[in-house]
Amino acid sequence: MPAHDSPQHQPNPALFFDTVQGYQRTFALKAAVDLNLFSVIGGGATAAQAAKRCGASERGVRILCDYLTMVGFLAKADDRYSSTPDTAMFLDSKSRAYMGRALNFMLHPAHLENAQRMAETVRKGGGDGAMLAPDDPIWVDFARGMAPMMFPAAQAIAQHLQPALATKAKSKVLDIAAGHGIFGITIAQQSPGAEIYALDWANVLAVAQQNAAAMGVAGRYHLLTGSAFAVDLGSGYDAVLLTNFLHHFDIATNESLLKKMHAALAPGGQVVILEFVPNDDRISPAPAAMFSITMLCNTPHGDAYTFAELGSMCRNAGFEAAQLVSLAPGPESLVLARKPL
Amino acid sequence: MPAHDSPQHQPNPALFFDTVQGYQRTFALKAAVDLNLFSVIGGGATAAQAAKRCGASERGVRILCDYLTMVGFLAKADDRYSSTPDTAMFLDSKSRAYMGRALNFMLHPAHLENAQRMAETVRKGGGDGAMLAPDDPIWVDFARGMAPMMFPAAQAIAQHLQPALATKAKSKVLDIAAGHGIFGITIAQQSPGAEIYALDWANVLAVAQQNAAAMGVAGRYHLLTGSAFAVDLGSGYDAVLLTNFLHHFDIATNESLLKKMHAALAPGGQVVILEFVPNDDRISPAPAAMFSITMLCNTPHGDAYTFAELGSMCRNAGFEAAQLVSLAPGPESLVLARKPL
Repeated sequence: MPAHDSPQHQPNPALFFDTVQGYQRTFALKAAVDLNLFSVIGGGATAAQAAKRCGASERGVRILCDYLTMVGFLAKADDRYSSTPDTAMFLDSKSRAYMGRALNFMLHPAHLENAQRMAETVRKGGGDGAMLAPDDPIWVDFARGMAPMMFPAAQAIAQHLQPALATKAKSKVLDIAAGHGIFGITIAQQSPGAEIYALDWANVLAVAQQNAAAMGVAGRYHLLTGSAFAVDLGSGYDAVLLTNFLHHFDIATNESLLKKMHAALAPGGQVVILEFVPNDDRISPAPAAMFSITMLCNTPHGDAYTFAELGSMCRNAGFEAAQLVSLAPGPESLVLARKPL
Repeated sequence: MPAHDSPQHQPNPALFFDTVQGYQRTFALKAAVDLNLFSVIGGGATAAQAAKRCGASERGVRILCDYLTMVGFLAKADDRYSSTPDTAMFLDSKSRAYMGRALNFMLHPAHLENAQRMAETVRKGGGDGAMLAPDDPIWVDFARGMAPMMFPAAQAIAQHLQPALATKAKSKVLDIAAGHGIFGITIAQQSPGAEIYALDWANVLAVAQQNAAAMGVAGRYHLLTGSAFAVDLGSGYDAVLLTNFLHHFDIATNESLLKKMHAALAPGGQVVILEFVPNDDRISPAPAAMFSITMLCNTPHGDAYTFAELGSMCRNAGFEAAQLVSLAPGPESLVLARKPL
């Protein structure tokens, strides 16, 4: 039997309990979103009041609210619950930054099933990647739910590109795996000369096109249907967006994709990569580094790549030295690289 | 739209992300236990070494170990992982305190399915309680897996009862919903005059009886098969154990059960209740108070009761004033009450 303990250490199973029960945090949050609980609590409600407003039982709401208070989404004073500032911002369905619809993608049954197969996946080295097949409907859930979560990154990208795009009367931006389309759409809003070319599966582009119309840029929004690896992309782009895309693939695949992007760009054009970028230790910062397990479970070869790895991929594809820009407090970063003039 | 933010508050979606992904913590821990990963890492291993020892891929083990480092189960220095003291204690299968087998009960498909139905359960006020039906096989998983997690509480109970039991040549202890039997067995080991009467479903008692034999107390271990609410318990007991049982039922049911225990006890006999006991605010301490959501999801009317509630149940059943004894750092407490002489 191994030596278990130093004399100073009092054994504590708290982390074990808490981690085993981690799934309850996920499904309590999901239940609250499904019940619209955060919206009806707002600035304050008792369990009885909240239960009445969302058509649920007082016992159920009381236990769920106490739990969500301990997890950090609510505050409790006497028997009255209220939303924290972040909860009011992200989980009140009346907020523009409402993220509740992201759960249809983030907690898609495929994600939950793949996580439950994790031991088998670790044995064989990767997931089956079924969701990377053409037209997989999970990406429609992605497109419908994930836009609000991407607003801050979309603003950052649009602001970064704005000066370069402003030098030309007409510019062209290619948005690979456009999804909800919010990255290209935000650029189109901020750069009136920009024509956006959005690539994705046809079922997903229907969502992007709706969003482009709703946000007033449909006239400068063009669709490229199919796989980024197979479609003829055209050429002369001023910028190519690779948002949350490279993490699905291995390094060699990413380099071949980046070469294709390089070929599609005009000289001086930029590739804008949005990614979860851990430090070289791969355990910090946790919100970025933890994304690696999602790629282990859901793709055959994907990963959360370090800046050294992403920079090397860009260099090997012909780009100039890449730059890293953190988007904290969000979990992602931008990696920016230019095609030589 | 509600007012979202104070000027001082920078919106941060980190808690939202982390909670949505909480299920990954659960299943990463489960995968590591299934792979026996903590045992093969022990005092130190690289991903390549650990992968070889547990017959898994290096990529999978590297990503899983990085994740488990961030969650707190491993330490990482350069590319070498090692177990924390608690991991070595509780998750190395060579340790006597190994808790890995508890996952078969704690992550039983019924628990996971009930958690995923939480919105519906909150609407109607409680779970269906299917697992409380006679002979439900989940309690065999409980009995087979949960004993090591109960060692500290079993020691505390046996030590508490030892002086009273030592005053008599022969004593009788009734263990309600005995499960693995470890509470009664530990008493039998420490109090040589104690005869243990273990009550549970027949399929569960088979496990308790095996444990009693393995631990050398089979000669003083007696079985009472069936429901605590229906079986004739006999009488003249010096102590009755109600360990992790009252949380499954409503207050009225618990009071009627406590009256039956009171009738079965000799004058001066004690009821020993082991429970998750939150403070009156029901949000502290979190490890106890969080247990309430498990009862919401898995029982029609159960809860984690406060000491005020448990004391009142005991009083209404005829017991003298109850006492509360914390078993920290474990999540549970003892509630002790005596039948008047």
